Amino acid sequence: MYTESTENQKIPRWDDVKQAADRIKGYIHKTPIMTSQTLNRENESQLFFKCENFQKTGAFKYRGAVNSVLSLSKQHIKKGVATHSSGNHGAALASAALCRQTHAYIVMPENAAAVKITAAQNYGAQVIFCAPTLKARQDGLERIVQKTGAYFVHPYNNPAIIAGQGTAAMEMIKEINYLDYIVTPVGGGGLLSGTAIAAKHLRPDIKLIGAEPRLADDAFRSFHTGKLENACRPTTIADGLRTSLGSLTFSAINKYVDNIMLVSETEIIKAMRMIWERLKILIEPSSAVPVAAVIFNSIRFKGLNIGIILSGGNVQLDRLPWTQSAP
Amino acid sequence: MYTESTENQKIPRWDDVKQAADRIKGYIHKTPIMTSQTLNRENESQLFFKCENFQKTGAFKYRGAVNSVLSLSKQHIKKGVATHSSGNHGAALASAALCRQTHAYIVMPENAAAVKITAAQNYGAQVIFCAPTLKARQDGLERIVQKTGAYFVHPYNNPAIIAGQGTAAMEMIKEINYLDYIVTPVGGGGLLSGTAIAAKHLRPDIKLIGAEPRLADDAFRSFHTGKLENACRPTTIADGLRTSLGSLTFSAINKYVDNIMLVSETEIIKAMRMIWERLKILIEPSSAVPVAAVIFNSIRFKGLNIGIILSGGNVQLDRLPWTQSAP
Repeated sequence: MYTESTENQKIPRWDDVKQAADRIKGYIHKTPIMTSQTLNRENESQLFFKCENFQKTGAFKYRGAVNSVLSLSKQHIKKGVATHSSGNHGAALASAALCRQTHAYIVMPENAAAVKITAAQNYGAQVIFCAPTLKARQDGLERIVQKTGAYFVHPYNNPAIIAGQGTAAMEMIKEINYLDYIVTPVGGGGLLSGTAIAAKHLRPDIKLIGAEPRLADDAFRSFHTGKLENACRPTTIADGLRTSLGSLTFSAINKYVDNIMLVSETEIIKAMRMIWERLKILIEPSSAVPVAAVIFNSIRFKGLNIGIILSGGNVQLDRLPWTQSAP
Repeated sequence: MYTESTENQKIPRWDDVKQAADRIKGYIHKTPIMTSQTLNRENESQLFFKCENFQKTGAFKYRGAVNSVLSLSKQHIKKGVATHSSGNHGAALASAALCRQTHAYIVMPENAAAVKITAAQNYGAQVIFCAPTLKARQDGLERIVQKTGAYFVHPYNNPAIIAGQGTAAMEMIKEINYLDYIVTPVGGGGLLSGTAIAAKHLRPDIKLIGAEPRLADDAFRSFHTGKLENACRPTTIADGLRTSLGSLTFSAINKYVDNIMLVSETEIIKAMRMIWERLKILIEPSSAVPVAAVIFNSIRFKGLNIGIILSGGNVQLDRLPWTQSAP
């Protein structure tokens, strides 16, 4: 079944997040929360890093993908699932499909990171390449859905996906019950929407912030103009955040999110390296975006308790942003 | 007080490890144990990674350093502590000195990794450079001890250091009580000795293996010839393992260790990258040595439960072994 339309879909509610958590419990990792005394001292605040880079398939995307796949009827899933993705959602859906013994078809732009293409293939997915435009992706997907009868699972503009992504914040708030802020990256908006829905139910006083690369500022513009704006060929290093909001995620963000903050490419790279050096963990550039928003605006967060969702850890290790060349 | 002599020193016993654990409890991180279903499937064994890369100062060395510093009398410590170190022990002692509000002097070879020099300095240590030979290190240290009156804390040939390092294995065995093997890197032998002492007391049937780079195979040779052999200008990428065993660590290893396994430089680099990609954590080349020993000899470990101590995570991020050039 192919449709990009979300006319009949509604923003998920807290109950959906809670049900998602129960549904996916046996499938996902309950990821750890890391802290660094040095970072806290330098920023004069308490930072709590929810490590979704340790999630299965290396990104939070697995939560939503598993929730979607487990929510589908036998009838819907029997011919497989399909999606378009530049990376982590593709691998996540491929792996999630295995939970239902079904097949995944992933349409990926030719310029997707090699590490992410290989990941989807390693989980047994069939990867179909397309030109790196939104239209080419949608056309490619439509063709594959018509040909195979696979069920389309949108990477973010899908209630089951959004509800699944909200379970990371739910875990974090249950573990650290005195957060003042939660900051997440925002690309398509699935993580930010799910996080906001969960957080505002569990702790209505928590402030929710989306962090976005200045070079892919569609969420920032949409948030301030009040209408859905598109990302114009974004070139940010944060490859997971080059997508634009969808109708559902835009509604959820408008309703629940307190602010969108922008960061520069230099700030993203510095924040990424700082996390690698201090926490000794690999995060991908998209994960560094909320870190950058906090550490380069530390005065605003002084003395407060900040939860940051590190969205993923799938990095092209031959090509790090702070080294000048690669083989 | 300067002495490289260990004539009056004895191998620590289990009680010393236990007392060390109580002494350092409030100072160290109880590090997590990580696992990977994919790695387990690929190796047909259960691998448990004790993440000392998450230890304070980024390496297990902090355990021994804190135990030593806390064990010293007021009289001994009042003029500071001193050591020679190419890296992690220097930073660890520098940081440990702060627990007793005293000063650290670290003699380092000129070719030590920049990241390790900076680390020691960031903890307030005075770093004194010397030529990259054992003699130059010892001479440099003797001069600084005579000049300052600082107390010499040997990087590994010291009972309090060995006992402190043994606390990592103690934690691991308490958490996973069915290990068949523990594999650690071996350089000077402090970690392997301490691990062996703790493990053989707690679970006499556990097999203890030291993993060593073929390019710095002094422990392997000493183990097999039964006399203390020196490393001859070792050039291995595992910079933490270029040192030779000491008299104490040699005795402990002879007494408690079951085998020493050698790995090649290529195997070290492959194992390091594999851990980065699969576990999404940073480990330094020395940590990859026991990983390489296990995954490149997987038939020997088939079906067994293997504890691997990942010794540290201090990596020169501008210069990764799998990229061809650096800025």
